Amino acid sequence: MTAVTWNFERCAARDREDPLRAARARFQLPPDQIYLVGHSLGAMPVDVHEAMQRVLRSWGAEGVGGWNRSGWLSASERIGERLAPLLGARSHEVICADSTTVNLFRLLGAALTSAPARRRILVEEENFPADNYIVDGIAQFVGGDHEVLRVPGAALADAIDARVAVVVASHVNYRSGRVLPMRAVCAAARASGAITLWDLAHSAGAVEIALNDAGADLAVGCGYKYLSGGPGAPAFMFVREGMQSSLRAPMWGWLGHEAPFSMAPIYRPAEGMRRFLCGTPPILSMAALEAALAVLEPYAPVALAAKATALGEVFASRLEGEAAEHGLVIEGGTDRAAHGAHVLVQHPDAKQLALALAVRGVKCDYRAP
Amino acid sequence: MTAVTWNFERCAARDREDPLRAARARFQLPPDQIYLVGHSLGAMPVDVHEAMQRVLRSWGAEGVGGWNRSGWLSASERIGERLAPLLGARSHEVICADSTTVNLFRLLGAALTSAPARRRILVEEENFPADNYIVDGIAQFVGGDHEVLRVPGAALADAIDARVAVVVASHVNYRSGRVLPMRAVCAAARASGAITLWDLAHSAGAVEIALNDAGADLAVGCGYKYLSGGPGAPAFMFVREGMQSSLRAPMWGWLGHEAPFSMAPIYRPAEGMRRFLCGTPPILSMAALEAALAVLEPYAPVALAAKATALGEVFASRLEGEAAEHGLVIEGGTDRAAHGAHVLVQHPDAKQLALALAVRGVKCDYRAP
Repeated sequence: MTAVTWNFERCAARDREDPLRAARARFQLPPDQIYLVGHSLGAMPVDVHEAMQRVLRSWGAEGVGGWNRSGWLSASERIGERLAPLLGARSHEVICADSTTVNLFRLLGAALTSAPARRRILVEEENFPADNYIVDGIAQFVGGDHEVLRVPGAALADAIDARVAVVVASHVNYRSGRVLPMRAVCAAARASGAITLWDLAHSAGAVEIALNDAGADLAVGCGYKYLSGGPGAPAFMFVREGMQSSLRAPMWGWLGHEAPFSMAPIYRPAEGMRRFLCGTPPILSMAALEAALAVLEPYAPVALAAKATALGEVFASRLEGEAAEHGLVIEGGTDRAAHGAHVLVQHPDAKQLALALAVRGVKCDYRAP
Repeated sequence: MTAVTWNFERCAARDREDPLRAARARFQLPPDQIYLVGHSLGAMPVDVHEAMQRVLRSWGAEGVGGWNRSGWLSASERIGERLAPLLGARSHEVICADSTTVNLFRLLGAALTSAPARRRILVEEENFPADNYIVDGIAQFVGGDHEVLRVPGAALADAIDARVAVVVASHVNYRSGRVLPMRAVCAAARASGAITLWDLAHSAGAVEIALNDAGADLAVGCGYKYLSGGPGAPAFMFVREGMQSSLRAPMWGWLGHEAPFSMAPIYRPAEGMRRFLCGTPPILSMAALEAALAVLEPYAPVALAAKATALGEVFASRLEGEAAEHGLVIEGGTDRAAHGAHVLVQHPDAKQLALALAVRGVKCDYRAP
């Protein structure tokens, strides 16, 4: 791949043959910008205008009747079903709700409760910091002798033993873009009886995810990055089918009740993923995410992942020629197979470079160090 | 008040003098319906159309830049500030986030952590069932010897003693509409060193709330009932100023970090209400709620409450004449001062009556028994 010189003509030719070509017109990108931060907030699908209008029409015309007549009540499950193919999961294993961090807390809590004899939470050291905050917070909250052990992602599989209740890791790293070997970590966890909990925030919609094939137990992820669900779009949860009935979330919410409208005095968890729901979902934000998923739906997950890899290759190849001369280090180089859809470029003056690029209309993300 | 006969002419005359008259045109109610379920989903403010357009314009034109340039990042605090006067709270004591149930879990968890020697959670027996699910769930999750004691609302104050960590109750009951004496319960709690946690879901925007005056510690509530924030609108939290720095939520989220963008490996809670934030807020749904609050803003909270009481009086008075004859019992009768903005009418065939009314375009809510 690196042998190809990606000049303008080759890129244009490849665009013309792109099986995803038609999808481009269904997104509106910021004008007069080279928008390289889709990993932070995905581009806006033009269909969200109509999706918002639809919710407002129902609200205005039917009021509370919209919950049944406009399908608001089933939105969490319906969006989960639409998401499942992108995660390599079955449709009844995914549900949409709340934020990534709330979902992480909820599934981590459920996992800890299910393994009371195990007191260690194993987390990836390079994990998204906010995920590790949640881990530290819940360990302190449940008290007792729970212990958090942070190890480098590459050492995760070897660190799993019978003391470990849950392994928490990011599938694609938020900085480096490196993909963790999900299958190997899951196999090691399964062998020791530990539960795996994956953060898919930087993978969903961008790289191939095979939760079922890899043997993953639990996962969470957000809707506003590569899924293009809009600012603060609701997040999602995955629990593998065989584990659903044995897990009980610490937040016993009314939507997770087996009969949400019975107003029964005692909580009884619903069957399936619905038991992990809690409060009333924000329908306007849910509708935007659903509209975004509808744009991705016609395309095979493998095609979306191939496109992301190809874009990364072209970008890294174009940069590579001048990288050494300017002291730029491209994490992973031009071979993008082991990386997600974003490209990390390191430079001692990265902050100044990012600011200078912004002035020239190139929007990228900067993180220290 | 009950002496007045509320015939059409009197009602029309009162409407003409109504200081809230101008607000009516700023809401769209379901056409061809008598919509009596604003306590379930509030009417749609017409301005939400423009509010949605504004978010979509920013997302399309600025992408992730909208977080700063369009004020998305400060929405949680800004909405909290706008809400505070309606709650009788100071502007830096309220913040908007997540759902009522998630917020209840969060503040209850924080309260329990702050009082480790106290093992009893005192809850109102007639409390909204979902709130009591959260209480039962968290008591089981934290384990140990935590105990949940349910007592009738009228017996709450007397049941508070030094064993009680937190008192959880609804300000306005979701069924009966009865207002609990917040001041008396708070005084009893303060005297015993217990923390009060109020659910304001059926009070905010409808009855006078004086959190500061009454001496309340903590409160949560939702944005989609009388606040008209839309289906599943984000909820809110209140923590009295003096308690903010000593409370630490169990969910250590990135937005609650003292430096959210530092990506620091260790969580340090922000000062003030921001420490209770967790994940990225759903901006489209937040924007709808903010647009709704802007409609209420010109009116004094006391005027909103007076209007709700007056509507209840007219409704109950009109029904009273025929109530006995048809076996209807109006909870609280025509004197609405001790009740919130909804009216409970009991009848053995209530379900059939509600269905028959729905066929005739009168939308009301039915609950068994």
